[in-house]
Amino acid sequence: MTVRFSSRVDISAPNPIAAAEAKARAQGVTLGKLNDSNPTRHGLAPAEVPGEYTAEPRGPRAAREALARFLSAGLDHPQSALRTAPAGGGREEGVDPDSLYLLSSTSQAYSWLIKLLCDAGDAVLAPKPGYPLIESIARLECVDTIEYQLQFDGSWYIDTAAIEELLYSPEGDRIRALVLINPNNPTGSYVKPEERAMLVRLCRERGIAIIADEVFYDYALEPFDGNARLAGETGALTFALDGFSKMLAAPHAKVGWIRVSGPEGDVREAQRRLDVIADDYLPMSDIIAARLPELLSVAPRQTARVRDRVRANLATLHTLLARDEHRLVDVLRAEGGWNVLLRVPAVIDENELVLRLIGTRRLTGQPGYFFDMTTNGYLALSLLPEADEFRANVTAVLDTVAAMLDLD
Amino acid sequence: MTVRFSSRVDISAPNPIAAAEAKARAQGVTLGKLNDSNPTRHGLAPAEVPGEYTAEPRGPRAAREALARFLSAGLDHPQSALRTAPAGGGREEGVDPDSLYLLSSTSQAYSWLIKLLCDAGDAVLAPKPGYPLIESIARLECVDTIEYQLQFDGSWYIDTAAIEELLYSPEGDRIRALVLINPNNPTGSYVKPEERAMLVRLCRERGIAIIADEVFYDYALEPFDGNARLAGETGALTFALDGFSKMLAAPHAKVGWIRVSGPEGDVREAQRRLDVIADDYLPMSDIIAARLPELLSVAPRQTARVRDRVRANLATLHTLLARDEHRLVDVLRAEGGWNVLLRVPAVIDENELVLRLIGTRRLTGQPGYFFDMTTNGYLALSLLPEADEFRANVTAVLDTVAAMLDLD
Repeated sequence: MTVRFSSRVDISAPNPIAAAEAKARAQGVTLGKLNDSNPTRHGLAPAEVPGEYTAEPRGPRAAREALARFLSAGLDHPQSALRTAPAGGGREEGVDPDSLYLLSSTSQAYSWLIKLLCDAGDAVLAPKPGYPLIESIARLECVDTIEYQLQFDGSWYIDTAAIEELLYSPEGDRIRALVLINPNNPTGSYVKPEERAMLVRLCRERGIAIIADEVFYDYALEPFDGNARLAGETGALTFALDGFSKMLAAPHAKVGWIRVSGPEGDVREAQRRLDVIADDYLPMSDIIAARLPELLSVAPRQTARVRDRVRANLATLHTLLARDEHRLVDVLRAEGGWNVLLRVPAVIDENELVLRLIGTRRLTGQPGYFFDMTTNGYLALSLLPEADEFRANVTAVLDTVAAMLDLD
Repeated sequence: MTVRFSSRVDISAPNPIAAAEAKARAQGVTLGKLNDSNPTRHGLAPAEVPGEYTAEPRGPRAAREALARFLSAGLDHPQSALRTAPAGGGREEGVDPDSLYLLSSTSQAYSWLIKLLCDAGDAVLAPKPGYPLIESIARLECVDTIEYQLQFDGSWYIDTAAIEELLYSPEGDRIRALVLINPNNPTGSYVKPEERAMLVRLCRERGIAIIADEVFYDYALEPFDGNARLAGETGALTFALDGFSKMLAAPHAKVGWIRVSGPEGDVREAQRRLDVIADDYLPMSDIIAARLPELLSVAPRQTARVRDRVRANLATLHTLLARDEHRLVDVLRAEGGWNVLLRVPAVIDENELVLRLIGTRRLTGQPGYFFDMTTNGYLALSLLPEADEFRANVTAVLDTVAAMLDLD
C-alpha cells in the first residue's frame, strides 16, 4: 500500500507563473526576480556572514554533500562492533545528498515528519518504555501517541504481534507512522533483524512510514549479530534521524538530519511534500553549515571517546553491583546507548527512592514510571559521568536502597 | 478577557520528583542528576564546540542578555524617521532578557505561537493583501487563516470595523490571534496609532493575542507621525517578532526572536506554556549564540546600508515613472519595507504580463493575485537590487506593458 500523507501540506497545482519558472529552470535558464527580497543577491550581506543565501529547503547543498560523503564512508559507525552487512531491506552503499534534510534537532525532525504524515487526530506508534518527548511533540501537532510494548525476558524485544494487531484494528486506520528508536532509550535495546523484517513488511502492507531515531546507534555496549541502521531501508518509507547531539556529544551545536529512503514512489511523494514543509522553515544557518565538514571530521574521535566512557562505566557498574554485600540492585541488560536501568527491590516506592536521594544525597533521577515501565522498581542511570562521579552515583543508590530497607 | 490557550501544551501538575527538584532549585540547591545525558557536563564536549550546554528553553542566557541590551538601547531603529514616543499601550524602556525567545526564524516563531494559542480548527486573522507564508504555516498547524482587509485610498489602512465585526461574529470564537505586520508586505503600510489603539482594545476585550511581525520596521520609506513598534505593547498579550533576516540583511544567519509583553497574568501564563514548547525544540545553537553580540554590533550599519539602497531605488523609480512617455504605470504609496506595488493598466492580465517578462526578458515576478489584491493590475517590485539592475527591471516592466498595449 502506498503511504497516505496528511492534508496539511498545500500541493495544489502550480499557477501559470510557477509552471513557467519551472520550465525555464529545467531548460537551464536563470530568471531574474522582480520581487527578489534576498539581500545577499544584491551585495548587501554583512561581511560577518558572507556568501549568498540559497534558501534550499533541504539545507545548504555543500553541507549536505559533506554529510553524504561522511555517511557513505560509514564514518558514522567507526570501530563499531555492530558494523555488519545490512539485514532486512538493506542499506545501499552511497548516500544521496538529495535524500538528506538538515535541521536543528531530531525534535524538529519529529515535528516535520508528523506534519507530513498525520492530520489532527491521527496517531503515531511509539515504544514503551520510552522517553515522554515524542508524546509531547506529537501532542503539539494535535496527534496522539499510541504505545507499543517492549518486553524484557533477559533482553528486550519488540512485541511485533501486538503491533500487527494494532495496525489491523479499527484504531489502525489513524496510525500513520511507526517510531523505532534504535537503540531505544532508556532500555538500550536495538531493533533486531527479525523484528525489522517483520515491521518493514507490516508498514509496507499498511502504507505506514517508519521514523527511525538512530542517534544512539554507534554506542553499542556489547556485540550484537546482524544489526544494522534502519537508515537507507528500502522496503518501506523510512525517515532515519541522527545528529551531532549524540554523535559528537554536542547537543549545543544543534545539528540534526533526516535521511529519506524506501520504495521509489513513496519517497518521491514524501520529498515533494517534505520540501514544502522545509521551505516554510529553512532552519539551517549558513554559519553552522559552513562548519559542518570540520565538525564531521571530529565525529569518529568524539564517538570513540564517549563510547569508551560509557563502556568503562558499565564495567564499573557491574563490579560495584557484584561487590555489594546486599545484592539488592541489579542492572537490566543494555545493548547500547548512554543509559541503563537499575532494578531495585519492588517493595521500594520509586518516588520515595528518588525523593530520599534528593533529600540526603542532593541527587535526583528518573524512576521507571517516567518511561512507562509496567512495574515498579526501576531507576535510570547515565553512563556519561567521569569515573569518580559515576562511582559516587552508584554508591549513593546502593546505600540509599539499603537504608530504605534498614540494612545499613 | 484573559487569553485562552490551546490544549496542545501539557501543563499537568508536576510529579513529586519535579516538585522536589523545583523546591531545591528555589532554595539555591544544585542537584546532581543520576540520569544526566548531557555530555557537556561530563567533560565530553568537543573542543570545536566549547562550553557547557545549558538547554535553556528561551535560548542561551548570555545571548538573550546581549539582545536585551541592544533592544533597550533602541539600536534596532537607528536614525529612523519613525523613532518617536510610544503610542497607544506604550513601550517600556528596558527590555527584560526573560521576555525574549531565541529561535531560527520568524516562521518558527509563527509555528510556536500558533501551537501556543490555537487548537486544530481554530483560526488566526492575517492581513490581505499579504504574503501566503502565514496561511501555509497555519495550515501545517491544522489552523485556518481568516483574512482581514487592508484598504487603499491613497495610503493603506486597516479595516478595523470589519475586524471588530469578525471578532464578535459566531466565527469569532475560533479566532485566537491577530497577526499584524508592521509594516505589512508588500503594501509597505505601518499600523497607525489609532488602528493600534482600537485593535489592542479589541484583542484585550476578546482575549485574543497579537502576533506582531516587525521585521521590516526600521525600513521607513518616508516619515510618519506617531508610529511605534508593537514590541513591548502592554495593553494586550503581544508577541513581537524580529530577526537578522531583514535587520542585518542576513537571512542565511537564521536568527529570529519573540518578545512577549502584555497584561501580567496573560504574560505569565503564556510564558509558562511557551517554555514547554521551546523546551521541546531548543533550536538556538551555541555556535550562533556565541556570535550574537558581534552580529548585533553590525546591525545599525547594515540597516542603514539597506535603507539607503531601498530609498535610493524608490527615488529612481519615481523618476523613471515620471519620465515614462506612456504614463501607464504608477506605484502605490509605500511607507516602509523592501517592496513596492506597481499598478499597471487593469486591461493587462497579470499572469500574461509576468509570462511575457519571463519569455522576453528572463525576468519573473509576483503579480497582485499572489497577495490577494482585490483587483487585477499589480506587480511587486523589490527595492533591493543594485542601481543598474533596478533601473533595468523597471525599464523592462515599462517596456513590456507598453508592448502589450501596442504602444512601443
